[in-house]
Amino acid sequence: MCARVAGEGDLFVGDLAVSRAYLNADQFFPGWLFVVLGRHATELYELSAPERHALVDDVSRAARALAEVFRPVKMNYELLGNQVAHIHWHLIPRLSSDPDPRWPVWRVAHEPQTLAPGALRERIEAIRRALEGG
Amino acid sequence: MCARVAGEGDLFVGDLAVSRAYLNADQFFPGWLFVVLGRHATELYELSAPERHALVDDVSRAARALAEVFRPVKMNYELLGNQVAHIHWHLIPRLSSDPDPRWPVWRVAHEPQTLAPGALRERIEAIRRALEGG
Repeated sequence: MCARVAGEGDLFVGDLAVSRAYLNADQFFPGWLFVVLGRHATELYELSAPERHALVDDVSRAARALAEVFRPVKMNYELLGNQVAHIHWHLIPRLSSDPDPRWPVWRVAHEPQTLAPGALRERIEAIRRALEGG
Repeated sequence: MCARVAGEGDLFVGDLAVSRAYLNADQFFPGWLFVVLGRHATELYELSAPERHALVDDVSRAARALAEVFRPVKMNYELLGNQVAHIHWHLIPRLSSDPDPRWPVWRVAHEPQTLAPGALRERIEAIRRALEGG
């Protein structure tokens, strides 16, 4: 995750105030986005108040952009770090077509669904436009 | 959830700046706490910036208190709302004894584990003390 923050690559969406946004390679849940803190820290209470506020504003701005593009029934926001402790949020629009709408995504077994390069670029561009408008 | 915010009862832990904290009745994952926004809203981007900052500070303060009491390997913070849209965070200390430490709690099928009244009061008191100290 620390290396990811240093790089861009095909899944990079954009820089926010204190974080960087990347699309999840698995788009089975359309729009699943990571918001990754630019510096290394692992818990919210390790951040100064101004940094924590800037981070939650980044998360909120990214969620609003996803909501504009994907029109979810509900947004899900998850800060876990069980495998990679570096602070990164999972932002997941839960659409009306969701296979298990009452529960978190983690119980839906599925094959990862990657996008073809053109569709990936289109999705990222749509999120960028919404971020810039919001 | 809106009704819960109006009430206290056996699971109530305390009032934070813009939210109220309640222990989850199911303590299979020890320390699982809800932080419930005092007023009704459903998405982070519906809040004013000062309200969002106060909420993330409440979440951070509660997480620090849980970390002090339960000494987790990692804290999990989840704002979902798939069943009850009113903003409420799941704060879940993931302990070294966790049955599935690499994954979110939702894949661990289990019988709900409620505490006897004395143990429940003790757990809530320990969290209250940590909140007051932090």
